[in-house]
Amino acid sequence: MTSPGDIPVEQSGVNRREVGLSRRKLIAASASLAGSIVASRAAAESLADVPPREVGADLGGHSERSKYVKIARIPEAGPGQRNVDPGDAINSKAPLDKLFGSITPSDLHYERSHSGAPDIDPAKHRLLVHGMVRKPLVFSVEDLKAMPSISRVVFIECTGNGWENWKSADPNLTVQNTHGLVSTNEWTGVPLKFLIDLVGKDHASNWMLAEGGDAAGVDRSIPLTDEILEEAFVAYGQNGEPIRPAHGFPMRLIMPGLEGNLNIKWLRRLKFGDRPWMTRWETARYTQLRANGKATQFQLRMDANSVITSPSGMMVIKPGYQRITGLAWSGHGKIVKVEISTDGARSWKEAQLNLPVLPKAQTRFQMDWTWDGKPTRIVSRSTDDKGNVQPDRNSFIAVAGTNALFHYNAQQTWSLDEAGRVRNVLD
Amino acid sequence: MTSPGDIPVEQSGVNRREVGLSRRKLIAASASLAGSIVASRAAAESLADVPPREVGADLGGHSERSKYVKIARIPEAGPGQRNVDPGDAINSKAPLDKLFGSITPSDLHYERSHSGAPDIDPAKHRLLVHGMVRKPLVFSVEDLKAMPSISRVVFIECTGNGWENWKSADPNLTVQNTHGLVSTNEWTGVPLKFLIDLVGKDHASNWMLAEGGDAAGVDRSIPLTDEILEEAFVAYGQNGEPIRPAHGFPMRLIMPGLEGNLNIKWLRRLKFGDRPWMTRWETARYTQLRANGKATQFQLRMDANSVITSPSGMMVIKPGYQRITGLAWSGHGKIVKVEISTDGARSWKEAQLNLPVLPKAQTRFQMDWTWDGKPTRIVSRSTDDKGNVQPDRNSFIAVAGTNALFHYNAQQTWSLDEAGRVRNVLD
Repeated sequence: MTSPGDIPVEQSGVNRREVGLSRRKLIAASASLAGSIVASRAAAESLADVPPREVGADLGGHSERSKYVKIARIPEAGPGQRNVDPGDAINSKAPLDKLFGSITPSDLHYERSHSGAPDIDPAKHRLLVHGMVRKPLVFSVEDLKAMPSISRVVFIECTGNGWENWKSADPNLTVQNTHGLVSTNEWTGVPLKFLIDLVGKDHASNWMLAEGGDAAGVDRSIPLTDEILEEAFVAYGQNGEPIRPAHGFPMRLIMPGLEGNLNIKWLRRLKFGDRPWMTRWETARYTQLRANGKATQFQLRMDANSVITSPSGMMVIKPGYQRITGLAWSGHGKIVKVEISTDGARSWKEAQLNLPVLPKAQTRFQMDWTWDGKPTRIVSRSTDDKGNVQPDRNSFIAVAGTNALFHYNAQQTWSLDEAGRVRNVLD
Repeated sequence: MTSPGDIPVEQSGVNRREVGLSRRKLIAASASLAGSIVASRAAAESLADVPPREVGADLGGHSERSKYVKIARIPEAGPGQRNVDPGDAINSKAPLDKLFGSITPSDLHYERSHSGAPDIDPAKHRLLVHGMVRKPLVFSVEDLKAMPSISRVVFIECTGNGWENWKSADPNLTVQNTHGLVSTNEWTGVPLKFLIDLVGKDHASNWMLAEGGDAAGVDRSIPLTDEILEEAFVAYGQNGEPIRPAHGFPMRLIMPGLEGNLNIKWLRRLKFGDRPWMTRWETARYTQLRANGKATQFQLRMDANSVITSPSGMMVIKPGYQRITGLAWSGHGKIVKVEISTDGARSWKEAQLNLPVLPKAQTRFQMDWTWDGKPTRIVSRSTDDKGNVQPDRNSFIAVAGTNALFHYNAQQTWSLDEAGRVRNVLD
């Protein structure tokens, strides 16, 4: 009975590349660990050190979180205005320092809204598709669910993500404060091009207006580039379930890689035309003054970005072995490289990327590091498959200036002092 | 102002294959739809048919589900014993008919436990790794979190999934009743081979005992094949957050493609040896008598499977356009093909697979169909990349017999009567 009777010993190797951790790197990490975490521990031969078995709770309709797990977003009223009364909050940031892998739980997906989150009756909700089309149509949620669907794992990022660090750095910020306006979910819905076929869009129409059903009625003009036509879809599913009200229930426009506010929530209208509508969201807002004195409109695509989530702001670490980990993403495509500096951007080492690396989704990266206990600065920078490299802060400011609020994607630096305290700094 | 100023018109095509829906198929579906759903509706030119904008709720720490969404698992006491008192339930089935895409929400992941779900204090929990090793060790949850991690999107399936239909068919079952003991999540944790390197496993050890910390103390012997050594990991993350208690908090063994009960929850011990331990879970249970009179032990890998989730049991459909959709999975690898028959398995058409198709994960499939209103039977069958084809029920019974309970993967047939009622039948 020493060999597996019924079990074919499978010739694997199929998923070898996918594990994303080479044998060599594992051994290297193992050696580091052996020197710190593990060697300090006594060898064990029995179950004496392991707590006894426990009886459990009844099975139910839903599996709730452990009472030991405290994990929540932070409602904010704007930069620097944290933990405000819920009625004053305009956004709620995802706890990046407490998340694993690349998926964000639906209830922790960041939230940004201009007039709260309505809980719309899906039976009454309708989507009007009209404008330069042969046959304008109105769709119910059930209509959409009966159509061909796609699913995509993509990030959505508020165009204001990072604004905390644009002008100055509060040293007491966590990574949730600095970068918590980005999340990655699996979204499911109907390709925009399918709806376009149904209404018969005029070939001369190269812009689309998308409008939400909340009281603010956010409406944005979207240019119908090949990439957008290929990728946009109207979602009704989020991480396998119906979209939650805060995220656009019962339907939301998903625009992979573009500004969060273009992913219109509570979608009630798509209108086709041949020019932008110049709504207040693209004139009073989301237009920004750059260093050269010119204003940029329709800066739609989110740029290459990354942040180290551990160690990160307000954590305290000890000298010795560290596992540096974080998230990288780009609205232009796939992340192909993340580099980490542990000496204040003087030298860089390539981090490992966890698989699968999906386009326009957050990618988890990690690297071994042994901290010698001396003050230093750690920072990450990402590169995407279109060749975009995340800029350092000075290069970013040289172009973007200091009068704007949106599309901040400069490298994030964390300082470590001799006590192991991790703090937010500008470079 | 008729062209996008700042926006480069990107030469896309990069993700063209990924969308998984060819232009031709879209147009074909579009034509079907035009003939049923859409043509029956009046053209619209204004917002008159769209409900007015709504003010919304305050932003908070978590986004809850809509009050309009009723979605839950069904606690059961065993085959045919549904909606029992929670204390009597031994499993709780996922609502496959209400899910989108391929990810299962964490709170709706199916649950099967032999002694309820303990909520273990993670600060006190330990994992003992010992047996034929150079240096036995005990790990805390924090130890694991400091190690290299991988994330994998994989299905877990109870070995009893499908048992409802083994001997007879209750016509009043939904797909949640027949197939709700399978779910797909993103799990994050430490590769088993990393822990093996740390403790220095003896090369002569080719079996591992894994034991859970619930009162039942489920423990299973696992053969250390190349494929298992390459793929197994000890997870602490589930869909981005800490594993929920019902699913093994604070740590769970993940064995991609193998029986659900090998994915040991509340993991407290891994022991290495050179033979199986022959626990009660591999003698009294999970050993089964086959048609040839022999018993099979260690039938560990879940076979190619699929089920149509819409239309499915207890639904009522109308003649005309239908979107057939469902889920396919195989413990052997990737799904490469799903075929659908709408004439009781006489003729078959290939369904479209939604992307990305990940190995040992559930894959969403879909197909257009126009129902002529006459009674018929619909059925799906999957093929994986190792060449395994999901068997019809007669072929399955010819090998597996009718005395067993586990690894039922026969094709699922739904009948439609002239009133459009969808019912569970055996073939």
